[in-house]
Amino acid sequence: MLEKVKHIILVLSGKGGVGKSTVSTQLALTLSESKFKVGLLDIDLCGPSVPYLLGLEGHDVHQCEEGWVPVYTNADKNLAVMSIGFLLKNRTDAVIWRGPKKTAMIKQFLEDVAWEDLDYLIIDTPPGTSDEHITVMECLKAVNADGAIIVTTPQEMALEDVRKEVTFCKKTGINIIGIVENMSGFVCPNCTECTNIFSSGGGVALAELAKVPHLGTLPIDPRVGALAGSGKACVKELPDCTTSKILQSIADNISAEKS
Amino acid sequence: MLEKVKHIILVLSGKGGVGKSTVSTQLALTLSESKFKVGLLDIDLCGPSVPYLLGLEGHDVHQCEEGWVPVYTNADKNLAVMSIGFLLKNRTDAVIWRGPKKTAMIKQFLEDVAWEDLDYLIIDTPPGTSDEHITVMECLKAVNADGAIIVTTPQEMALEDVRKEVTFCKKTGINIIGIVENMSGFVCPNCTECTNIFSSGGGVALAELAKVPHLGTLPIDPRVGALAGSGKACVKELPDCTTSKILQSIADNISAEKS
Repeated sequence: MLEKVKHIILVLSGKGGVGKSTVSTQLALTLSESKFKVGLLDIDLCGPSVPYLLGLEGHDVHQCEEGWVPVYTNADKNLAVMSIGFLLKNRTDAVIWRGPKKTAMIKQFLEDVAWEDLDYLIIDTPPGTSDEHITVMECLKAVNADGAIIVTTPQEMALEDVRKEVTFCKKTGINIIGIVENMSGFVCPNCTECTNIFSSGGGVALAELAKVPHLGTLPIDPRVGALAGSGKACVKELPDCTTSKILQSIADNISAEKS
Repeated sequence: MLEKVKHIILVLSGKGGVGKSTVSTQLALTLSESKFKVGLLDIDLCGPSVPYLLGLEGHDVHQCEEGWVPVYTNADKNLAVMSIGFLLKNRTDAVIWRGPKKTAMIKQFLEDVAWEDLDYLIIDTPPGTSDEHITVMECLKAVNADGAIIVTTPQEMALEDVRKEVTFCKKTGINIIGIVENMSGFVCPNCTECTNIFSSGGGVALAELAKVPHLGTLPIDPRVGALAGSGKACVKELPDCTTSKILQSIADNISAEKS
């Protein structure tokens, strides 16, 4: 039930392991810290990481008259979360499903969850351009999603996959809000030397090439990594770090454009 | 056509971006440096990275009487490669396919490629446990694959996905050769301090937990990363680095067990 959802934003990446779920959860937390009502839907059915990242593992989804009740991160209920992780009995259970079952599950997540009034619904996707992505695009056609944020790391291989993702957005007619470059440099905690482990600047170059906005460049920061599992907002815990500043600017960007 | 293939090894990971394709290509190169005849099949249809990693982008697949001729890395023809990347007109083309089309393509890769005599066929898979994995397992039932190598990074989130992959192997009855822990520490090139960016030791603990062998722990090494795109074997170019030693020991392990 997406009738009462004002804005829908997809978070995509061509390649896995680029920090898509970290960006999705931290963006959702940033928006909820800015007093918006936010939903976060994890449609990575084979590797759901949102429950772990938000410290919500073991929580259950309940049924109400309107459908499934999402899991809320706190009593204020300003961040509602849904993931297949909440439906698995055991966290080591593997979801060994072919496409049609995945498609049915995602439709349920969009149609049968009581999302209530939301300012923003962030949808975290698995890597690639297959069943999950095609299904979510088809379901969102009627409700007019705001667009997609594409997350990438700066190495050539990841960028190649992002180009595929840009092609996918163009083919399926979804607006690209912009590209976030993640893990673009590691600052040694011992000597403060910054090394571009995965090379650098690729996201900026790609944004120019694809003529889409570059939303920011996030460094590798073990302090941000350490927030995984806590459900804490980076913008609140580490207000001065680069990651927080960029997250806030993306959130401001989204809310300025769309309010 | 897998009749003349002696050993088949799958490379799996629950999560994307853990270096699965790098491990697959370098393992294939290591085995071919050890004078074995090797094949490398990339069944990641939405994000094929093997052609880029081996410096083979732009190469074409040809047709012969027996089927598709794979791409060879050199005139000695001791490393045969097949990937959907060779079939795309443009490297930015997105493969926007639902499951059944992916299944058909993978069957063709296994049945219609003229793999010829191979000592080893390494199969690089996409992240997850879905169509590609189910299909490849079903197709390999008749030919008795040797087993799977599972690649992971040490952070908790990746390990959780690996547990799903272990469940998948057990459910589908494939032997687990062992777990490789990748990117487990970064040695600062300025001060040589080693930082465990993504935490450490998870792969070892997981191998113990799942009662499967731990094959080795690969550090983050920008010199190894720089080999991407060159098609050069790490064991030949950087014989003294930790990554080479572990790759060689995995190759020795496989060939000792199976010869």
